[in-house]
Amino acid sequence: MKKLTMDTIVNLCKNRGFVFQGSEIYGGFANTWDFGPVGVELKNNIKRAWWKRFVQEDPNCYGVDAAILMNPKVWEASGHVQNFGDPKMDCKNCKTRHRADTIIENFSKGTVSAEGMTNEEMEKYIEEHDIKCPICGKRDWTQIRKFNPMFTTSRNMVGDDKDIVYLRPETCQGEYVNFLNVQRTMRAKVPFAIAQIGKSFRNEITPGNFLFRTVEFEQMELQMFCKQDNSIDIYNSYKEKALKFVEDLGLKAENLRFHDHDKLAHYAKAACDIQFNFPIGWQELNGIHNRGNWDLSRHSEFSGKNMDYLDPFTNEKFTPNVVEYSIGADRLTLAVLCQAYDEETLENGETRIVMHLSPAIAPFKVAVLPLQKILSEKAKEVYSILSKEFMCDYDEAGSIGKRYRRQDEIGTPYCVTIDFETLDNETVTIRDRDSMEQIRININDLCDYINKKIKFN
Amino acid sequence: MKKLTMDTIVNLCKNRGFVFQGSEIYGGFANTWDFGPVGVELKNNIKRAWWKRFVQEDPNCYGVDAAILMNPKVWEASGHVQNFGDPKMDCKNCKTRHRADTIIENFSKGTVSAEGMTNEEMEKYIEEHDIKCPICGKRDWTQIRKFNPMFTTSRNMVGDDKDIVYLRPETCQGEYVNFLNVQRTMRAKVPFAIAQIGKSFRNEITPGNFLFRTVEFEQMELQMFCKQDNSIDIYNSYKEKALKFVEDLGLKAENLRFHDHDKLAHYAKAACDIQFNFPIGWQELNGIHNRGNWDLSRHSEFSGKNMDYLDPFTNEKFTPNVVEYSIGADRLTLAVLCQAYDEETLENGETRIVMHLSPAIAPFKVAVLPLQKILSEKAKEVYSILSKEFMCDYDEAGSIGKRYRRQDEIGTPYCVTIDFETLDNETVTIRDRDSMEQIRININDLCDYINKKIKFN
Repeated sequence: MKKLTMDTIVNLCKNRGFVFQGSEIYGGFANTWDFGPVGVELKNNIKRAWWKRFVQEDPNCYGVDAAILMNPKVWEASGHVQNFGDPKMDCKNCKTRHRADTIIENFSKGTVSAEGMTNEEMEKYIEEHDIKCPICGKRDWTQIRKFNPMFTTSRNMVGDDKDIVYLRPETCQGEYVNFLNVQRTMRAKVPFAIAQIGKSFRNEITPGNFLFRTVEFEQMELQMFCKQDNSIDIYNSYKEKALKFVEDLGLKAENLRFHDHDKLAHYAKAACDIQFNFPIGWQELNGIHNRGNWDLSRHSEFSGKNMDYLDPFTNEKFTPNVVEYSIGADRLTLAVLCQAYDEETLENGETRIVMHLSPAIAPFKVAVLPLQKILSEKAKEVYSILSKEFMCDYDEAGSIGKRYRRQDEIGTPYCVTIDFETLDNETVTIRDRDSMEQIRININDLCDYINKKIKFN
Repeated sequence: MKKLTMDTIVNLCKNRGFVFQGSEIYGGFANTWDFGPVGVELKNNIKRAWWKRFVQEDPNCYGVDAAILMNPKVWEASGHVQNFGDPKMDCKNCKTRHRADTIIENFSKGTVSAEGMTNEEMEKYIEEHDIKCPICGKRDWTQIRKFNPMFTTSRNMVGDDKDIVYLRPETCQGEYVNFLNVQRTMRAKVPFAIAQIGKSFRNEITPGNFLFRTVEFEQMELQMFCKQDNSIDIYNSYKEKALKFVEDLGLKAENLRFHDHDKLAHYAKAACDIQFNFPIGWQELNGIHNRGNWDLSRHSEFSGKNMDYLDPFTNEKFTPNVVEYSIGADRLTLAVLCQAYDEETLENGETRIVMHLSPAIAPFKVAVLPLQKILSEKAKEVYSILSKEFMCDYDEAGSIGKRYRRQDEIGTPYCVTIDFETLDNETVTIRDRDSMEQIRININDLCDYINKKIKFN
């Protein structure tokens, strides 16, 4: 197969019901995407696999689902109101916006890091090196400014008063503000984690590369509250667990690597990403951070509530440290799609496009296909048995070969064909997506057979 | 049991990890709530049950997950920019806001409907009948104004331009704008439905009655696209299906009733609610609407895209009619909590608080309880087997009786106790929440035993 491009994935997604452009009939809406009938199942399966692994199977992890709209003080405590945002400048010629630090790093091919530079230093560097707009090729930049990417809205108050409300730019504050509630109601003992899956919003206007960067995105993340002493061990253990999780979803080791951060926030002790080899290059897939006790300390200070933990064994009182593990559900869905895509040349010379999605997260587990329309009554009977257990597709249109291809393209691991023998002896053929081999099996054994293959362990 | 109050439910939720006040450490944030470790499982189980019933098991229903932020033209087409909102007035004395129509209807004990009144007519009625503020008892009203409850935000554009963006006040527009995409990629034939679960936002400042009315809320809804001729049959069939669904979740028939709407939007042909008998009285739980072809026609008009459907059998071309079925996940969670709550008097005279949640949606399916701490190693072994299959709780603190009570209060249908016999013969006791009876069972049979009990069929 030739090198995969993002366009190939975008087109497959559009034509096979994975992902559509947001508000497409109105010309779209920049950096928003709608999951279609196939994509919504894939993304939900990924979210469920994450929740199973990190919440369900861990007796020391507790889930929450906090509101997107929070008291604005939360974002003062977190520092987002004051310090959030990237240095941006606009090209006056072609009216596009760019991150100044990225422009410098791309220009220098990574030999110069702009992370510690002031806006003035960056402007000087860009002028001295005559760095031009990558879109139009002119050098006609505005000054560099920091844009706070928090979306703001306001709540109606009585009378004509309004107050500023932010759409959360990250989910983790929902865990911090509920630290005391969860600890109390679950009688949780440190180290314990609080986990959440939910949407966050960032006012991004730079091109997003499909699902890679979107104005609204779903995070799957947990905050592990621990003693300072064992925060390093916990940090390291989450590096391992995070890597194993994405490998278990089907991402190949050769497309994954750790990237330790050189520059850290002043309170942080360690931070690293796992990067994936996307069609656009190696990019961050998830982050793991050893954040010290910054988060709870700040909320203590701004809320006036004591966020200390009293160790019931040692009677020691301390503000827990936080190890954060966070991964984007949309970005991970994109990685999974890229990894699964394959074009195979068959024996007859034809090309087969197939999504080798792990059966655990494949959108549909099985497709029910009557060989001829005359068999559709029996096929619908089989469909109604199977659809009690899993997401199934049903298709009676076109040749059986075309129907197999269509299921290959949406990654359905099993196709069940109803033929005339089915009417005689209650058996069907079941075809494996990857090997394309078929076996005959009794209808009564189908659910067990498929259930065993689709477990996420 | 004495009559259930909302306060009883709110307190149980707060103390048992179902639901906390949003941003509580900052004094809260009006009409927002955070689901805690127990509540998040309950709500997710309800969402999954709905998806299973209405999407997974229906070959003619397709799911989507559309972006919350949509092209602003969507809300012009839908009429929300122009016509959305309730007639509100403020009490100048106590600074509270009220719906004028509700004030009139409550005053007249339902004998007067304010639905067709103009603002002036309502003001006159209120003055003539000297209707006072229900909070402070004074009559010192502002004029009646319509407040559009859409939250607005803006997107950063290049330069200093900004544009108005709305937080969606309803999810269904995500289905309408994707009608063509879904029809094309799924080769769907009318009648077919598009379904979605997702958050919507309304700028509500009136008191919300806990989860009943919140500024952000999750909708579970589907839009069935059909011919006009069979829209009435489809409408009636969704009335049945909607009622059966909430009954299958455990809501009792005596607490449910249909409420047909007398006044309809000009394009609508029929509309009804299912109401539930909440502690605050009979209130809307879900809605079913026969909407004509208004929605697709408007999007056709505003987007310039032809939204017609070509019937492949008759070659007839028409704009499909829509039957909408919509239910709030948060409100349904509240109804389920109210229905499940019970205070039982035991033989020894003690009171047992127990949540009789349907096992299919109970937050934890099973709790693993070692009789003594010395048995915790074995108990953790059992926990790790069971937690591969379902959400489990683990508890080794306090007397076994207290631990049973705690599980009763969060509705855990089964408690597995590890005792000394377990070490001898690999059997455990399993206790039924409702009957409180215990049987002995082999560890190897536990998963099957529980799996059979928790199916949502």
